[in-house]
Amino acid sequence: MPAGFEIDDLPAAEIDRQAELYGPFTDAVRELVDATVRTTVDDDEVRAVQAEVEALTARLRASQLPGSYGVRIGAEGRGRPWGNAVVGLRNPVAPPLRPVPDPDEPGRVTCDFHLGAAYEGPPTLVHGGVLALVLDQVLGEAAGAGGRPGMTGTLTLTYRRPTPLGDLRTEAWIERTEGHKTWARGHVVGPDGVTVEAEGVFILPRWARALVDERERRAASEVGD
Amino acid sequence: MPAGFEIDDLPAAEIDRQAELYGPFTDAVRELVDATVRTTVDDDEVRAVQAEVEALTARLRASQLPGSYGVRIGAEGRGRPWGNAVVGLRNPVAPPLRPVPDPDEPGRVTCDFHLGAAYEGPPTLVHGGVLALVLDQVLGEAAGAGGRPGMTGTLTLTYRRPTPLGDLRTEAWIERTEGHKTWARGHVVGPDGVTVEAEGVFILPRWARALVDERERRAASEVGD
Repeated sequence: MPAGFEIDDLPAAEIDRQAELYGPFTDAVRELVDATVRTTVDDDEVRAVQAEVEALTARLRASQLPGSYGVRIGAEGRGRPWGNAVVGLRNPVAPPLRPVPDPDEPGRVTCDFHLGAAYEGPPTLVHGGVLALVLDQVLGEAAGAGGRPGMTGTLTLTYRRPTPLGDLRTEAWIERTEGHKTWARGHVVGPDGVTVEAEGVFILPRWARALVDERERRAASEVGD
Repeated sequence: MPAGFEIDDLPAAEIDRQAELYGPFTDAVRELVDATVRTTVDDDEVRAVQAEVEALTARLRASQLPGSYGVRIGAEGRGRPWGNAVVGLRNPVAPPLRPVPDPDEPGRVTCDFHLGAAYEGPPTLVHGGVLALVLDQVLGEAAGAGGRPGMTGTLTLTYRRPTPLGDLRTEAWIERTEGHKTWARGHVVGPDGVTVEAEGVFILPRWARALVDERERRAASEVGD
């Protein structure tokens, strides 16, 4: 595996405990981010809050990772991309999204989510690039849910109508696969219907190919038994 | 103008004063976001910091905008998109980028920027969707620098190689214009060269067309004089 993946073999109970600690903590910082964009308190209060924020940052930095969070892999083999900019449990930039695989349709994922003031582009509207960010992630998760996770090769977005800030929904699904490539499609739905459509090609990284090929050979031979 | 634009006629000196207040404040919250992703302090300290963050949020929310920041327009006519998710001076989600129009080539913008732990996708790498977010913004600014700002119509991204977190550069320029549409292209450059290429179509919103058409008629008639 390349840099940034770490097999820490954490048991499920410890992962749950960490999620219960860091989830609410990160949510609190997300609220602070929203309040930072929207506050109208007076200048002295802004300066006073700034000094306290700086003190809190120093306390958190008293012990910290040298770089980014990466992906940790627990005892049951599931990855924790907790620093991820879209789904990261520990990342205040992430809304975060929680894409759910469709139990009836492998390779389809859906997600209800909310975007507030920190995701603005044109006034009152979601930034077009934030929609691209969301769709890159959920199309990638659809590819992964179909058994072939990958890095984005190409991504094409077609904007149908403005997307208002607020409650939104996204869906993504696999169109087809060919070797190590997966073609996925998806969209974001706002209060008046689909606002943006996306299609992308996701390519299984070279280092992961042997692992996936082996798993598929084993699955095929089990079917043959 | 549609909702969210507000002509507040602030004089330049007052805009500078606000930028000097909110710029460092928002930078402080960005540092807290980075520390939130990376901290390894013990659980009690995380809980203690969380309680203080919640108290600071309450102080900021004592007086706040009902919704997002939008775009304010000062006395000299320049817009302030301070809540914008890529360039917003008051938005901790924004890295922020400061795209600079090329003085020698109208419609070309460049920008050096830095992406840290909060912008991660694959371990140690920038999220592919964050690159789409950056490119949507700078291609849009190129269109605007050419005199025809617009909403994104389509955006296509081609990922050439992984983009490491750290110092990066982006450039965008206008390919051609036709009526109210502008075709723009651009890329992100990492330490080993171009990592992702983008092309997009930006469409001047209906409400802005009369304004731009009038400005161009006037400019053409001045040339004719």
